[in-house]
Amino acid sequence: MSEWILDLINRNKYAEVRNMLIEMNVVDIAQIVEEIDKDKLLILFRILPKEMAAGVFSYIPSELQEFIVESITDKEIKNIIDTLFLDDAVDFLEEMPANVVKRVLRNTDPETRKLINQFLNYPEDSVGSIMTIEFVDLKKEMTVREAIQHVKETGVDKETIDNCYVLDNNRILEGVISIRKLILSDDNEKLEDIMETDIKSANTHDHREVLVSLFKKYDLLSLPVTDNEYRLVGIVTVDDVVDIMDQEATEDFQLMAAMQPSEKEYLKTGVLELAKNRIFWLLILMISATFTGNIISKYDDALQAVVILASFIPMIMDTGGNSGSQSSTMIIRGLALGEIQPNDILKVIWKELRVSILVGIVLSSVNFLRLLVLVKVDTFIALTVSITLMLTVIVAKLVGGTLPLAAKKVKLDPAIMASPLITTIVDAVALLLYFRFATILLGI
Amino acid sequence: MSEWILDLINRNKYAEVRNMLIEMNVVDIAQIVEEIDKDKLLILFRILPKEMAAGVFSYIPSELQEFIVESITDKEIKNIIDTLFLDDAVDFLEEMPANVVKRVLRNTDPETRKLINQFLNYPEDSVGSIMTIEFVDLKKEMTVREAIQHVKETGVDKETIDNCYVLDNNRILEGVISIRKLILSDDNEKLEDIMETDIKSANTHDHREVLVSLFKKYDLLSLPVTDNEYRLVGIVTVDDVVDIMDQEATEDFQLMAAMQPSEKEYLKTGVLELAKNRIFWLLILMISATFTGNIISKYDDALQAVVILASFIPMIMDTGGNSGSQSSTMIIRGLALGEIQPNDILKVIWKELRVSILVGIVLSSVNFLRLLVLVKVDTFIALTVSITLMLTVIVAKLVGGTLPLAAKKVKLDPAIMASPLITTIVDAVALLLYFRFATILLGI
Repeated sequence: MSEWILDLINRNKYAEVRNMLIEMNVVDIAQIVEEIDKDKLLILFRILPKEMAAGVFSYIPSELQEFIVESITDKEIKNIIDTLFLDDAVDFLEEMPANVVKRVLRNTDPETRKLINQFLNYPEDSVGSIMTIEFVDLKKEMTVREAIQHVKETGVDKETIDNCYVLDNNRILEGVISIRKLILSDDNEKLEDIMETDIKSANTHDHREVLVSLFKKYDLLSLPVTDNEYRLVGIVTVDDVVDIMDQEATEDFQLMAAMQPSEKEYLKTGVLELAKNRIFWLLILMISATFTGNIISKYDDALQAVVILASFIPMIMDTGGNSGSQSSTMIIRGLALGEIQPNDILKVIWKELRVSILVGIVLSSVNFLRLLVLVKVDTFIALTVSITLMLTVIVAKLVGGTLPLAAKKVKLDPAIMASPLITTIVDAVALLLYFRFATILLGI
Repeated sequence: MSEWILDLINRNKYAEVRNMLIEMNVVDIAQIVEEIDKDKLLILFRILPKEMAAGVFSYIPSELQEFIVESITDKEIKNIIDTLFLDDAVDFLEEMPANVVKRVLRNTDPETRKLINQFLNYPEDSVGSIMTIEFVDLKKEMTVREAIQHVKETGVDKETIDNCYVLDNNRILEGVISIRKLILSDDNEKLEDIMETDIKSANTHDHREVLVSLFKKYDLLSLPVTDNEYRLVGIVTVDDVVDIMDQEATEDFQLMAAMQPSEKEYLKTGVLELAKNRIFWLLILMISATFTGNIISKYDDALQAVVILASFIPMIMDTGGNSGSQSSTMIIRGLALGEIQPNDILKVIWKELRVSILVGIVLSSVNFLRLLVLVKVDTFIALTVSITLMLTVIVAKLVGGTLPLAAKKVKLDPAIMASPLITTIVDAVALLLYFRFATILLGI
């Protein structure tokens, strides 16, 4: 399909192209737009109906948005911005250089300009920065018939009319009514008798995480956003919340792998920026790993005496690190999904203790037998390694299970208490235990 | 609020309780139901209007569902099942023991029973197992007025009427029309002239992952599901897709921390099951870590000669592991979000090579200076450690960046190529490099 259209474009058959495009989804058109030459791009953009052009515009990468805005007339800019949903317009402007923003704002009417400026000022991760203002507002004295009439007259520009909002004269939110309920209700019924008054809402200054938990808990399609006086100022729709969910999960993945989080796509991020995001934690962890090294040098006599001890260090360290990161991952994810609360710490400790004893027994038994039967080392050495392994697994799982909860308690992001940090701690503990048992059991 | 209701329940003031509950959201009621004594629970459940009772039922944990079903009459069971949306009924039955399922199915009418059985038979992760059958179907010859009339007559039981589906006489899907479009269109317009014909849909046997990418790409609220003959058999709504997104991300987190994935909440999973999910990979990785140990024992002469070499092993291993898991995390997440394709492998290698050289230079320079100035070791030892570190970072980032892509190519889940596995590989490479440079530079 898309090759076909690309071919028509290359042969300049724009009438046919237009006929095909108007039947298509704007997301698919945006994908085609990304693939064609820049000189054809503007033509393509101009043959689309106004509404569709704005839709396509909101789905293309910001480099292309910038190119288009720089190539079209002021009047065309005004057309696009007026047709875009406000949240899409704001998203677009946030990525543009200052001179483009200036030119765009100069070409929008004062009302829109004021709104855009207000939106650009909401804190980056706030609900206000995500909401849109295209919603339908009704009055509670209206009948269902009047309400539907009002929706018909004003609904065309609204991003979602699945829910309509009932406001009083001061724009205070009094109720919500779904379009479904309107359709299914008797024409003469008053809104105040059928509207929902147990309203879930967010404040413009709430952190956007609030949205994720509300939408998931109540299976919402949209949510009203109010200011501090409970006046309705916008709505958030579920498609934006889906994007936030992805971003929050990505942030956790990055933190857990010891990186500074970034919302930029990997392939679109420069080498310098990638290196910068990664180097800070690598440095910290490298320097803290030298403490582990210090423990080894303190026991260099023991090592010199029984040099085979050194060969079990990687296995003990890796198994400890893996055991700990299993536990921390479960807890960090459980906290992110709201399945675990910081107050569950005792339950977590009790659970991890039992799991780690079970896991520890299996691992150290397998290891003990392997050392005796296959590697044929001295029994006391096998014992030293296996007891250390057992205790390391227990310590690792307890540390891995509790550190993320402790972080949450002191309002840190639990995801930074992930494998790399826990590995570093567990390494040190494991080596201390190892040499302690070695000196006792092997008498060195 | 909820304490207030709990207090009223304890004082047996059920008329007041009922008045408060009917104003509330079923999700909040479900939370209250979880907190009250079992003997009050049934009373509470019975004073709710039928629709709300079914709604609350679909939001409570399966232990409580089982208790309720075992305590109520056959007629009440029939009432609940008939009122539940089909997908919620199926979700509920999937968690029940066989005798409960039998009793429930005996008390539903043959039509519903057949449907439920069919749904229970869809493969676990298929689109069919998630969809529901409550949708509105229209004919293309209808006018808007007739369509709205049809929605009014049949829409009450439908899970979503945001989108209505236009079917031909063989139930083949011909078009989609949003309720919004219906409301905003002229009453006399024919559906075939205003319906969307560029329809996004899924097949009952598609993997549920398909839903996530379709819903995200096209910002959908619902999606039609068809059988192999393109007949409409159900729809999937965005709230279910949001749950799938969480489950897929959780699965990646678990795989990446070397665990067998499980959808069960941590606090609700038994100790034995948790241990079982964790032990398999720990065993595999423990045994592969012994290869690393073998490398060390092969060089025990070198170690015996320069025992301080042992003390740098943890730092080199940890830094290598962390560098590799940074890269693998970025790639695994990029693949999951569709931002990176397996064919991008050359771009990834080129990017990781440059990033790793930058990162490696910084880390090994810091390390070199620290060893010379603070630890005051011999220059050749500092050189051995720093060169090894530099090369380890490069190897780690290349392995971490490419293994997930290779996994994807051979249709494995990229998430299993995560830190623990990469750490094990990188450990071995790092130690080989380390002892090689030591023998060359230190002449041992």
